[in-house]
Amino acid sequence: MSVNVKPLSDRVLVEPAVAEEKTAGGIIIPDTAKEKPQKGKIVAVGNGKKDEPITVKVGDSVLYGKYAGTEINIEGKDYLIMRESDIFAIV
Amino acid sequence: MSVNVKPLSDRVLVEPAVAEEKTAGGIIIPDTAKEKPQKGKIVAVGNGKKDEPITVKVGDSVLYGKYAGTEINIEGKDYLIMRESDIFAIV
Amino acid sequence: MSVNVKPLSDRVLVEPAVAEEKTAGGIIIPDTAKEKPQKGKIVAVGNGKKDEPITVKVGDSVLYGKYAGTEINIEGKDYLIMRESDIFAIV
Amino acid sequence: MSVNVKPLSDRVLVEPAVAEEKTAGGIIIPDTAKEKPQKGKIVAVGNGKKDEPITVKVGDSVLYGKYAGTEINIEGKDYLIMRESDIFAIV
Amino acid sequence: MSVNVKPLSDRVLVEPAVAEEKTAGGIIIPDTAKEKPQKGKIVAVGNGKKDEPITVKVGDSVLYGKYAGTEINIEGKDYLIMRESDIFAIV
Amino acid sequence: MSVNVKPLSDRVLVEPAVAEEKTAGGIIIPDTAKEKPQKGKIVAVGNGKKDEPITVKVGDSVLYGKYAGTEINIEGKDYLIMRESDIFAIV
Amino acid sequence: MSVNVKPLSDRVLVEPAVAEEKTAGGIIIPDTAKEKPQKGKIVAVGNGKKDEPITVKVGDSVLYGKYAGTEINIEGKDYLIMRESDIFAIV
Repeated sequence: MSVNVKPLSDRVLVEPAVAEEKTAGGIIIPDTAKEKPQKGKIVAVGNGKKDEPITVKVGDSVLYGKYAGTEINIEGKDYLIMRESDIFAIV
Repeated sequence: MSVNVKPLSDRVLVEPAVAEEKTAGGIIIPDTAKEKPQKGKIVAVGNGKKDEPITVKVGDSVLYGKYAGTEINIEGKDYLIMRESDIFAIV
Repeated sequence: MSVNVKPLSDRVLVEPAVAEEKTAGGIIIPDTAKEKPQKGKIVAVGNGKKDEPITVKVGDSVLYGKYAGTEINIEGKDYLIMRESDIFAIV
Repeated sequence: MSVNVKPLSDRVLVEPAVAEEKTAGGIIIPDTAKEKPQKGKIVAVGNGKKDEPITVKVGDSVLYGKYAGTEINIEGKDYLIMRESDIFAIV
Repeated sequence: MSVNVKPLSDRVLVEPAVAEEKTAGGIIIPDTAKEKPQKGKIVAVGNGKKDEPITVKVGDSVLYGKYAGTEINIEGKDYLIMRESDIFAIV
Repeated sequence: MSVNVKPLSDRVLVEPAVAEEKTAGGIIIPDTAKEKPQKGKIVAVGNGKKDEPITVKVGDSVLYGKYAGTEINIEGKDYLIMRESDIFAIV
Repeated sequence: MSVNVKPLSDRVLVEPAVAEEKTAGGIIIPDTAKEKPQKGKIVAVGNGKKDEPITVKVGDSVLYGKYAGTEINIEGKDYLIMRESDIFAIV
């Protein structure tokens, strides 16, 4: 699904995954003291900074910090716009 | 519509869009805890910094942070002057 | 009008314009929450920093932040001395 | 054991070792005032930053700060994702 | 008048002018809210930093911030030693 | 005596000397207000940063700040792991 | 007098001069509000940083800030170890 948004510089647009706070066996997991990364899918990427091209691609599944990015609503759907450096890993 | 203002360095002049705080169906949306980006149109751009040309163009529709920039009144109309790095994306 | 002051590095000397806090129709404008830029005229400029020449010229009308610069009195007249980066735009 | 996670930039994925707070002779060691490093094994590494390749390899046993990294759960197992600079030494 | 002090790096030695807090007509000027620059004369300069030679010369009359520099007493006379960047302008 | 630890980047492993808080004549020296450096011996060094090789060598006696480094226990013995920049001098 | 200490990087070893808090005429000078520099003699210097060689030499009389450096006792005598940038001037 494509969106009509072009992030600037080293920013990317992320569609957050629905939170699962249960184990495979259905047990509800309480929050722990440590911040947990969030999961999402890249839907748009910027052109990167000079000498630092963006390394994630549209469609990548990524993990990012709980407080990363800024909420942005496009055609009734919530996305997050964040810097690529807020992303921990591709999963 | 052109204005007689030349932003310096990596600054741009933005004409803020009128805020819409209703959904398409007319329901008033209350503020949430997360900061929401604002929408506006670029009306003037600076020359950029050495090795970092400005990438937005006059006429671009952009999203930026709620607290970005400084208000500036030109011929009775309010604009915002901000650094290009305050802009999240072109929409 | 020329002054006998040579700003150092990336500094400029600005003659502040007289504040107008009325609209064209004569209504007094109260201060708003957002900081408003101030207007002034460049009367002297430094030589810039290495690789960053000064881009404003003597005679330019400029906008700058309310708290920019340091007051300096030359022959009974008040000026402001500030860094070029404190200037938002040429108007 | 391989995991399907690709850390970005200068990040690495670490599988923490089980804490041993006893001496060889079986005496329980109380916490001291000084922060103690933690031990773990590298299970995935990023591509490094421009001009700064990653120097640890998958399989390396490493020491890192007690508060380094972000917890991440992959297929029911806890890992830590951290920047390589959070790692003190290979042991 | 020469002094036997060689400032290091980008530092300069300044002989502060005697403060005049009266107008030409003899009226005592009260302090205002804005910090006013101070006047002095350069009596010694360092060799500058790599790629940033010192631009003021011995004998230059300069303006500097009220809290700039460190007092230093040489043969019973008070001077200020400060970085060149603390100097606003040559007058 | 060699240890099986390879510090990363600009880090070094230091074996702290036993504290002597008496003068040669046996008088106990009370702590003064000023932080005193600590003495130790380098037992392992990292490869340094790009363009900044490590300058201390294994076997060097060094002075370092009281609060420098992180304690690390190797085979029952306490060491400190710190950045080379935490070391003041070779003695 | 030589000491067996080799400061690292941009550090220097300084032998502080005995404080004189009297004028030539013997009057005791009370402390003023402004920090006064201290005087000392360079007894050892580091090799400097890459591209920034040390500019003071052993034997130079220098002025430095009251709170500069770390006390270090060598063979019963107190010295200060500080970065060269903590030194204001050679006198």
